[in-house]
Amino acid sequence: MLEQLTILAPGLIGASVARAARARGMARRIVLWARRPETRLVLGEQGWCSATFETPEEAVEGSEFVVIAAPVDRIAPLVRQIATRLRAGAVVCDVGSVKGEICRLGHATLHGSAHFVGAHPMAGSEKKGWEHGNADMFEGRPCFVTPLPSTHADAVTKVVGFWRDLGAQVVTVDPDRHDEIVAHISHLPQVIASSLCAFLATRDAGWRNYAGGGLRDTTRIAGSDPKLWTAILEENRDEVLRALRHFQDDLEGFQAALANRDFVEVSARLERGHAYRDKFRPST
Amino acid sequence: MLEQLTILAPGLIGASVARAARARGMARRIVLWARRPETRLVLGEQGWCSATFETPEEAVEGSEFVVIAAPVDRIAPLVRQIATRLRAGAVVCDVGSVKGEICRLGHATLHGSAHFVGAHPMAGSEKKGWEHGNADMFEGRPCFVTPLPSTHADAVTKVVGFWRDLGAQVVTVDPDRHDEIVAHISHLPQVIASSLCAFLATRDAGWRNYAGGGLRDTTRIAGSDPKLWTAILEENRDEVLRALRHFQDDLEGFQAALANRDFVEVSARLERGHAYRDKFRPST
Repeated sequence: MLEQLTILAPGLIGASVARAARARGMARRIVLWARRPETRLVLGEQGWCSATFETPEEAVEGSEFVVIAAPVDRIAPLVRQIATRLRAGAVVCDVGSVKGEICRLGHATLHGSAHFVGAHPMAGSEKKGWEHGNADMFEGRPCFVTPLPSTHADAVTKVVGFWRDLGAQVVTVDPDRHDEIVAHISHLPQVIASSLCAFLATRDAGWRNYAGGGLRDTTRIAGSDPKLWTAILEENRDEVLRALRHFQDDLEGFQAALANRDFVEVSARLERGHAYRDKFRPST
Repeated sequence: MLEQLTILAPGLIGASVARAARARGMARRIVLWARRPETRLVLGEQGWCSATFETPEEAVEGSEFVVIAAPVDRIAPLVRQIATRLRAGAVVCDVGSVKGEICRLGHATLHGSAHFVGAHPMAGSEKKGWEHGNADMFEGRPCFVTPLPSTHADAVTKVVGFWRDLGAQVVTVDPDRHDEIVAHISHLPQVIASSLCAFLATRDAGWRNYAGGGLRDTTRIAGSDPKLWTAILEENRDEVLRALRHFQDDLEGFQAALANRDFVEVSARLERGHAYRDKFRPST
């Protein structure tokens, strides 16, 4: 059990980490920092919060384990801000959706006095805000842990253990490889869902009232926070562009088959999609 | 109450029509025809089935109302097959996902002795087969009814009433307009979801195990029956191509903004998608 766990900037994911850690008895004290005073006040009233602090520096003091739950563009600045106040040997992880740059900066900033290990739980929803957090958020969900070759092995083990204890299925992978993977399975679907909605908005907006469950599901993530996603796409621009271009080629192929009335090819493409989708592991 | 309701080729939708009609006491007798003898045998054992027949011609005899629940490429042939055996003044509707050609052919084939009125309930799932049907399938769901200008007003009223009685929210619209609408809100999302899956299948197939709920939802309809969808895309080829080309232009615009690091534009596109998705009516 940790003596003290710090969570900085808890939103949906950070609050879920706190609630899950409390529910599973993973830390004696769970302390939080949030930017807004009004948020700190309400957080301080939650059963799963031991204390709140006015600055990130104060919140990390004495903690063995720190989770930075801020948006991707706020992670590196927060690491710099807390660097000199971390306890020697403290382990810091984040929950950001992009890992390459953040891990390299995090590692360089703490240079051995404390340890930065990237993490990215594949959980959440289009809702945001700590109010929507829950203790089961990570149960059975994948969580990437992304050490660099030079990351201290002991720190990696601690972060892997932390997410496993929260209920996640941990996958350890190189940060850049992580960014390539999520560009395909998370960022590309986001761009597609948002673009589909933005496109449909240019047609008759009333049509959405006629939509069945298909369009509803296909576009659910378009309801995600545009600010968060702009930051993610900026951070992972190169990999997303690569994935997007290849997807566009594929869509071009589909269009050509349809235009040429090549329904054998249309059918083959639908079959390939079907076969891939069929092997999704059961929903958790 | 109808004396006799006939449902031809019941799958997921046809069986749901039968079960809903039985549950709501809409017909004294509900009789079915299915192509396979083994299916007819099991259907005959269901509480919501009064009788099964070996041919469509026999199944429609004496019925005031006939629902053709076959795939889109089988509807017009079935109308031709039953035309001379329909009771005078009988009303025939279908449940096909494409309407223009089918409605024109249906109308021409019955030429006034009976009445063809197209219908298309926006309900169902990626599952297929009559076993998955249920009596609540149409509750609160949109259902298009697509008369031609020359369709008998009384027959239109009967079809509108039929679907309303099944629980659906009926929208009456011209068949060609219907095809334009569903090309956007149903067929385009299907092409996108299937293409996304087919594309991801060309990368590391193991990645799907790391996916969160986003990819799962975005691609759910890729699990739909490729045969059914090839027929739908063939039938609605022109409208789907138009919608697909415009969507590709939009995606091109997104890609250009990302490539040019124009994050104001990226953000604006995400915002437009978010605003559109936000106004979806609540899920039923």
